[in-house]
Amino acid sequence: MIESTTTPAEAAPVGYVDDKKALLARLRRTEGQVRGIARMVEDETYCIDVLTQISAANRALERVALSLLEDHLRHCVAEAVAEGGEAADAKVREASDAIARLVRS
Amino acid sequence: MIESTTTPAEAAPVGYVDDKKALLARLRRTEGQVRGIARMVEDETYCIDVLTQISAANRALERVALSLLEDHLRHCVAEAVAEGGEAADAKVREASDAIARLVRS
Amino acid sequence: MIESTTTPAEAAPVGYVDDKKALLARLRRTEGQVRGIARMVEDETYCIDVLTQISAANRALERVALSLLEDHLRHCVAEAVAEGGEAADAKVREASDAIARLVRS
Amino acid sequence: MIESTTTPAEAAPVGYVDDKKALLARLRRTEGQVRGIARMVEDETYCIDVLTQISAANRALERVALSLLEDHLRHCVAEAVAEGGEAADAKVREASDAIARLVRS
Repeated sequence: MIESTTTPAEAAPVGYVDDKKALLARLRRTEGQVRGIARMVEDETYCIDVLTQISAANRALERVALSLLEDHLRHCVAEAVAEGGEAADAKVREASDAIARLVRS
Repeated sequence: MIESTTTPAEAAPVGYVDDKKALLARLRRTEGQVRGIARMVEDETYCIDVLTQISAANRALERVALSLLEDHLRHCVAEAVAEGGEAADAKVREASDAIARLVRS
Repeated sequence: MIESTTTPAEAAPVGYVDDKKALLARLRRTEGQVRGIARMVEDETYCIDVLTQISAANRALERVALSLLEDHLRHCVAEAVAEGGEAADAKVREASDAIARLVRS
Repeated sequence: MIESTTTPAEAAPVGYVDDKKALLARLRRTEGQVRGIARMVEDETYCIDVLTQISAANRALERVALSLLEDHLRHCVAEAVAEGGEAADAKVREASDAIARLVRS
């Protein structure tokens, strides 16, 4: 678990604040999927069926990530860009690095 | 959750039976990671930090999948291939389809 | 091949205009890689060696895509966002859709 | 470009020998796609349209890889497994490593 890089008390709300409820519901469901996969392994379920569930859980996490990312571009990156300067540049680079990690994971 | 396609009482042990304990430990850890991601969203953690954790959880699931797949090739597919015939062919196709799903997820 | 969605004569330069030379060099190299893979198949090179080259070509294309995307966020999306309104919204959604296609390809 | 690890004159035909013509046709088409992407960059085509073509070329390469892999499992791995022993083990591990590279690329 990494440290959050920004948690000032006076911070602007995060970009995904309006989607928070939906994101949490999807993450709870994904947590249940992963618990279900553990149960399948515990019960020695046929390998291919376990793999199918892992692909589904991966896609569910990806959808959460893509949704977070869109909110991030729309709010945090947009604001930084509007202010301009080095901070804008840093935000774009940070977002690009996160996209690269997603594409490779 | 899909139905297991093979659960005869007299079934051969699944290919990953020897790795079961390690796989379960990794899945429990991944379940904890996903729960941690939900907590980050609940706490309105900075988007990029949440994305980093999602990429990590995805990689963890991928490692479990690749390990299951190797065991599957080594045992189930190998056995089917040794017996030959249509069943061997079906097993190879089934494994290939699972690989395609993984590559695309 | 799809139609370009914006080709007005008076169009602003694309975001990647400063990286154009480097991008072209990398694409020429990737084209050579794909031609090399065809030659390997022609020569009936061992399957695993062909697969290794395909993974390398995929990573090369991914790097080009990530570079284009960063330029796009930095210039086209930033400009649209600075102007605000519906066009900004549309640009963010368009970029998010492209990211989703990349993550899944 | 890596060296082929097996090129004995008396080598068994590679697993994909029956699909060679179809694989070559697909690789020629993918090479054309990559050349088309370079032309788009040369012409300063809109970034998102270039990204769409890159995703398409990646999927095309992936399909070639999955087809090669299925042939490899069906022939090379199956034969090694039928013979058994350490060579079988090595073949399964080699195939698993190639799958891991594909999943991550």
